[in-house]
Amino acid sequence: MTIFSLAIRIYIEDTDAAGIVYYVNYLKFMERARTEYLRHIGFGHYLLTENYLFVVRKVQIDYKQPAKMDDLLQVTARIIKQGKASLQFEQCLYREQTLLACAVIDIACVNKQNLKPCALPSHLTQLLAQHHD
Amino acid sequence: MTIFSLAIRIYIEDTDAAGIVYYVNYLKFMERARTEYLRHIGFGHYLLTENYLFVVRKVQIDYKQPAKMDDLLQVTARIIKQGKASLQFEQCLYREQTLLACAVIDIACVNKQNLKPCALPSHLTQLLAQHHD
Amino acid sequence: MTIFSLAIRIYIEDTDAAGIVYYVNYLKFMERARTEYLRHIGFGHYLLTENYLFVVRKVQIDYKQPAKMDDLLQVTARIIKQGKASLQFEQCLYREQTLLACAVIDIACVNKQNLKPCALPSHLTQLLAQHHD
Amino acid sequence: MTIFSLAIRIYIEDTDAAGIVYYVNYLKFMERARTEYLRHIGFGHYLLTENYLFVVRKVQIDYKQPAKMDDLLQVTARIIKQGKASLQFEQCLYREQTLLACAVIDIACVNKQNLKPCALPSHLTQLLAQHHD
Repeated sequence: MTIFSLAIRIYIEDTDAAGIVYYVNYLKFMERARTEYLRHIGFGHYLLTENYLFVVRKVQIDYKQPAKMDDLLQVTARIIKQGKASLQFEQCLYREQTLLACAVIDIACVNKQNLKPCALPSHLTQLLAQHHD
Repeated sequence: MTIFSLAIRIYIEDTDAAGIVYYVNYLKFMERARTEYLRHIGFGHYLLTENYLFVVRKVQIDYKQPAKMDDLLQVTARIIKQGKASLQFEQCLYREQTLLACAVIDIACVNKQNLKPCALPSHLTQLLAQHHD
Repeated sequence: MTIFSLAIRIYIEDTDAAGIVYYVNYLKFMERARTEYLRHIGFGHYLLTENYLFVVRKVQIDYKQPAKMDDLLQVTARIIKQGKASLQFEQCLYREQTLLACAVIDIACVNKQNLKPCALPSHLTQLLAQHHD
Repeated sequence: MTIFSLAIRIYIEDTDAAGIVYYVNYLKFMERARTEYLRHIGFGHYLLTENYLFVVRKVQIDYKQPAKMDDLLQVTARIIKQGKASLQFEQCLYREQTLLACAVIDIACVNKQNLKPCALPSHLTQLLAQHHD
């Protein structure tokens, strides 16, 4: 099985005065990759739907090497655990063969009105099942 | 009449790899000052209301000098024109006596559903009238 | 002559609580397009060089329509005026045929140490001349 | 011992289309609090110095509750572990008595040129020692 990955170009907006990419932005790149992964399997509206919302519950990220202006990175997105109302992603950031960062990110599906956990939409669980077979 | 101004500290998140504040962020600082100006006159929920929305229609900004990490800036907010469904702000950014940037920003009041222009809420026009007398 | 344009996907990071793209971010998209335009003509390091820096001197932007989550936009970049030490860009943002915003952006070339204006690098003026013929 | 905390107002720039604060921005707020904590103990230039740089090596953050537009938050900053070339912070985000998020953040001191670990500057270790006594 190949791991989904998204190419991301670094622009000046992504950098900080230390001359490298502002580390907080790595999480934005990872979310872009999650969004594109779900679009890729057929689930086009990752975050904004009528009844539920995906929210991030937990992030664990290790920073290995800084990215720099003009870099072309690859960001992976892979589901490593699927719960009734949650998804756990493993995501890594590479510049060519060099690993820059690696993260485990826990996403919960919540009711849009009261923000309480709710089951993943069946449309999504079907797409995830098809994709893993 | 004194001009309302908000103090803003520059953090690493605001800078870019050129070692100065990323110029786009000046517009964020100006919006913070507009928001606090309206809160100051008694209008606490600048952007998010039930029926209408304030949107930016036009920005003209001149950049004079860069701001840097750790700077403590002052950002002014002054209404220079009030229409039936619009407000025009003049806003300047200073580090002590040095003018860093100056902008004219046009805000429109729009209906939240269809985004068509609608009259400024009467609660706001009353507060603006009181404040100018 | 065709106008250079860059495709930009809208992610949750680009939006705000009004449910639309935060207007300040349009300027980031326009800078991405300027950067890619210059890379396209052969000038790969738009902002970070040894001796000089490009800084934005002036922005005039009109907002026509909001962009939304998941939109795929096109951002143009076209030089409309070239000075000894400056470039003026006209840039527009489209969702399919709909014009969302249009801007004129003045860039100055400055000395990296003292931030005083300096002539555009000859490597760039040569590339610009080739591209316009 | 009281824990250092910084007040942070939420602006539209901090929110996303889900109507809540974009979770990535919590890390920006936490860095603002770290910066102000170090300024408070007498170390005014947290990130930008001549010879070394502080970089984030690891973030573990749990999100409990969302913050919203106009919220006034408190962000704490407390060093829970001090190494020869590193600092570990525990940081929490509150809206009044409600805990919104909690994080452990590992910072490394690195040489500015080669990004290799280097000892914390003695000026900082002295300030930290004074502050803990």
